Amino acid sequence: MNRFAIGVDLGGTNLKLGAIGEDGDLLEHLEVAADARKGPEDVVGRMCRAILELRDRWDAPYALAGIGVSVAGIMKLPLGLVIAAPNLPGWAGFNVRNRIRQEMDAPFTLENDANAAALGEKWMGVARDMNHLAFLTLGTGIGGGLVLNGRIWHGAKGMAAELGHINIRPEGRLCNCGNRGCLEAYASATAVVRCATELADSGRASPELERLVRGEGPLTADRVYRLARQGDTSAGLVFQEMGAALGIGIASLIHIFDLEAVVLGGGAIEAWDAFQEPMFAEARRRSFVQRADPRPILRSGLGSRAGIYGAACLGFQGGH
Amino acid sequence: MNRFAIGVDLGGTNLKLGAIGEDGDLLEHLEVAADARKGPEDVVGRMCRAILELRDRWDAPYALAGIGVSVAGIMKLPLGLVIAAPNLPGWAGFNVRNRIRQEMDAPFTLENDANAAALGEKWMGVARDMNHLAFLTLGTGIGGGLVLNGRIWHGAKGMAAELGHINIRPEGRLCNCGNRGCLEAYASATAVVRCATELADSGRASPELERLVRGEGPLTADRVYRLARQGDTSAGLVFQEMGAALGIGIASLIHIFDLEAVVLGGGAIEAWDAFQEPMFAEARRRSFVQRADPRPILRSGLGSRAGIYGAACLGFQGGH
Repeated sequence: MNRFAIGVDLGGTNLKLGAIGEDGDLLEHLEVAADARKGPEDVVGRMCRAILELRDRWDAPYALAGIGVSVAGIMKLPLGLVIAAPNLPGWAGFNVRNRIRQEMDAPFTLENDANAAALGEKWMGVARDMNHLAFLTLGTGIGGGLVLNGRIWHGAKGMAAELGHINIRPEGRLCNCGNRGCLEAYASATAVVRCATELADSGRASPELERLVRGEGPLTADRVYRLARQGDTSAGLVFQEMGAALGIGIASLIHIFDLEAVVLGGGAIEAWDAFQEPMFAEARRRSFVQRADPRPILRSGLGSRAGIYGAACLGFQGGH
Repeated sequence: MNRFAIGVDLGGTNLKLGAIGEDGDLLEHLEVAADARKGPEDVVGRMCRAILELRDRWDAPYALAGIGVSVAGIMKLPLGLVIAAPNLPGWAGFNVRNRIRQEMDAPFTLENDANAAALGEKWMGVARDMNHLAFLTLGTGIGGGLVLNGRIWHGAKGMAAELGHINIRPEGRLCNCGNRGCLEAYASATAVVRCATELADSGRASPELERLVRGEGPLTADRVYRLARQGDTSAGLVFQEMGAALGIGIASLIHIFDLEAVVLGGGAIEAWDAFQEPMFAEARRRSFVQRADPRPILRSGLGSRAGIYGAACLGFQGGH
């Protein structure tokens, strides 16, 4: 009988579920608001009910191989204890593994969201058949995932791949983590907004960018990008900085790992056209390995579905 | 019968060999000048004769388990082709694996020197029983080795763990690799000399440091360190900078890998007392993982013998 797995991706905004066949067919895809402010018990309860409904709906024509759950937080993975989850208020200190067990009788594999997305890209995305890759999600912050020898790299305590916090400029911008100059402070969607605001504050913004920063409505990375696409030089500068920071960070990753590829995902890759050139140039300039034997830097193939694919892949693999 | 392995560590200055028992007993230790300027064929010929002599001498009471050879160069390891070897003139482009095969009928495992030293520290040094560690050798340059899941991490093409070239200051000092601001440009023995010279050139050196820089005899990291130990503030500054750069780099490594420990070796760790404090402080300040759950940063337990221990460990493991 054909097998399927259930992949769940719980983020700060949306809760996504997929029933996915062994060859990657997306049998069913569900996406609902996460409603994270209702607190962890409520979210996990709704999530588990949705998983069980999906199971019951597909377990007749197919056979369930397993369930994978990816969560947007740093966890001590063997325990399932959330250490930090900036986008899931009230989750720090919450034991998500225990709570799911209380709500649901089925075995499941728990994973960090960026780790799951990295595996998704390896399974059915742009890194198919690659065994060594780094994945960066460029969103509100920057998440990281590592696949080494074909499997997710968890480190000593399940907290590895905090790639958003590698060093770019040691005396640079303050990062949410308390450190200065992390990649996240230069190449996330939040960093784009911040850089645009800094340009306006220092009087170096074009009148159009100035208007965008001071004007009505929320200042978003997407709006800065649209201005850059219209040819606005100072909005373009914002993405030059983003690309350069990505190139610096990626060069370090290539030196450290000798990777097959680096894959970028997350909402802010919509601005790919605006930041790719400085990113490629900087990575090449800074890495003799990259010059001698270039490794592809790729745009996510699965986009916002990378997480459910990776989680489903974990469902097929079974495990903790 | 008791088994032993032969570990060889070929550097730019010395050729070291050890016959080492399964429980880490150093049965015999040989150290001769590498005489690298005589060229690769000559060095490999002498090295192989020494290996075979050692084998013949110990293969009666003990049984030879295997031979490991570590070489101070970046190699495409499956091939044995040397890509770059700053301390072994004329070795770039040389296929060391093929040459050893011509000279010696015994099977052996080839490895990069810093990788071997990392494994040595895991086997018989300060990282005993740890499965995830990074090793930095602070010498003329900075070499790196990674042990992940208890084994050396080679990456996609055998060129991984170039930890000397991770980013510290993107607009900083020019590095030998062509990039700016690599760790190697701030924390190697060469960087110590360079930093002392820069202080003197900018008029910020004490009269004593100024004399050391301008005076007779070669300016070495060791001489700067001795001055720092005498309480010279400007010589102390040199090691403040070295320690800060190490802390910045180590924080990135901890974020990336969630390691059990970072181990430092190489000649320049003699100055440990002068650089450890800023190193520890900076790593803590820059890494929330390090603050939440501190990972030890350790001084090599095997010192200049880490390489032969790691190579011997590879001899016991067998392999490529």
